[in-house]
Amino acid sequence: MKKISRADIDSYPSRYRASLINCLSGPKAPVLIGTKGKYGSNIALFNSVFHLGANPPLVGMVSRPHTVPRHTLEHILATKEWTVNHVQDTILRQAHQSSAKYDTSEYDAVGLTEEYSHIASAPYVKESNYKFMCTYVNHYPVVENDTIIVIGTIKEVIVPADSINEHGELIFDSSCLSSIGLNNYYKLSHSDRIPYAQP
Amino acid sequence: MKKISRADIDSYPSRYRASLINCLSGPKAPVLIGTKGKYGSNIALFNSVFHLGANPPLVGMVSRPHTVPRHTLEHILATKEWTVNHVQDTILRQAHQSSAKYDTSEYDAVGLTEEYSHIASAPYVKESNYKFMCTYVNHYPVVENDTIIVIGTIKEVIVPADSINEHGELIFDSSCLSSIGLNNYYKLSHSDRIPYAQP
Repeated sequence: MKKISRADIDSYPSRYRASLINCLSGPKAPVLIGTKGKYGSNIALFNSVFHLGANPPLVGMVSRPHTVPRHTLEHILATKEWTVNHVQDTILRQAHQSSAKYDTSEYDAVGLTEEYSHIASAPYVKESNYKFMCTYVNHYPVVENDTIIVIGTIKEVIVPADSINEHGELIFDSSCLSSIGLNNYYKLSHSDRIPYAQP
Repeated sequence: MKKISRADIDSYPSRYRASLINCLSGPKAPVLIGTKGKYGSNIALFNSVFHLGANPPLVGMVSRPHTVPRHTLEHILATKEWTVNHVQDTILRQAHQSSAKYDTSEYDAVGLTEEYSHIASAPYVKESNYKFMCTYVNHYPVVENDTIIVIGTIKEVIVPADSINEHGELIFDSSCLSSIGLNNYYKLSHSDRIPYAQP
């Protein structure tokens, strides 16, 4: 085993440190956040959407205010709507590519398709089979590093018809991915279902 | 595809709704949080640790104040220290079982081993090969549902010696797991490494 101290971490070159620290929190969901901006539709790759509560249904998401996802945050604060579209292996290259800086719509730039629900104006990603619509609830500025935690409530869910089991559990199929850090993607295969634990 | 409205969600029985909403944010890392309390060592299963920033190295975590992870939060606020231990398939049953309510140390109750570093008093889980130590930085009460977002800085990292590549990326081996919702676990297999995207 390798033991890395805080002094080691602080001594690493910036990109090396960023890669390592990004990986420490482990597997997470790569998702495309879809928003509608003044100049058109926008998608951005995030891996920081987290469950916050079921009743009311709330999710959180970390946004860096002055770097890549700036457009997404601006659009969310302006329109109060966004979609969360899970990245499947069929659209991995396009999804990853959307993290490059474009002046035009990332839908056009990377080759993904806008899709709309009648309940809102934020665009879904048609090619994603697991997706949901959020409405803005609040945001919390994190003073420690100027990130912003955005909180939304879930307004609509679109998933494969046979993906929800009798318990309400959404089973992700083998096309779904997890990401660790910013560059590495992992395939998922269902391993165990373990019921609620009793002492 | 199945489209679920907010009215549908609100009409579901409480457990069914909780399962579904917990799953929507997709794959995440099941981790054991180790803390030291007044009456001994404590571990609790969480799946809400998220990356917040690399410089300084910060992670966030969602805690429910009045339900299962109460001891963990109390210990963190009292001692300012906790460990994050990724759950591998070799300790999945014990890790999941630790989410039951015990009056004694969960280490003893589920059969996992405390391990200590000289830099802090919070216990690691010896059987976990990917783990790190956190020091308390701040916490943010989420007024929307009384959860609390706890923020820590990373003080030490312990991982397999060969698990970090030349770029600083931590590669999780096939013993590592992802969880979706509260009951379903998935195996991970490395699929793609995609470099930083350029337009």
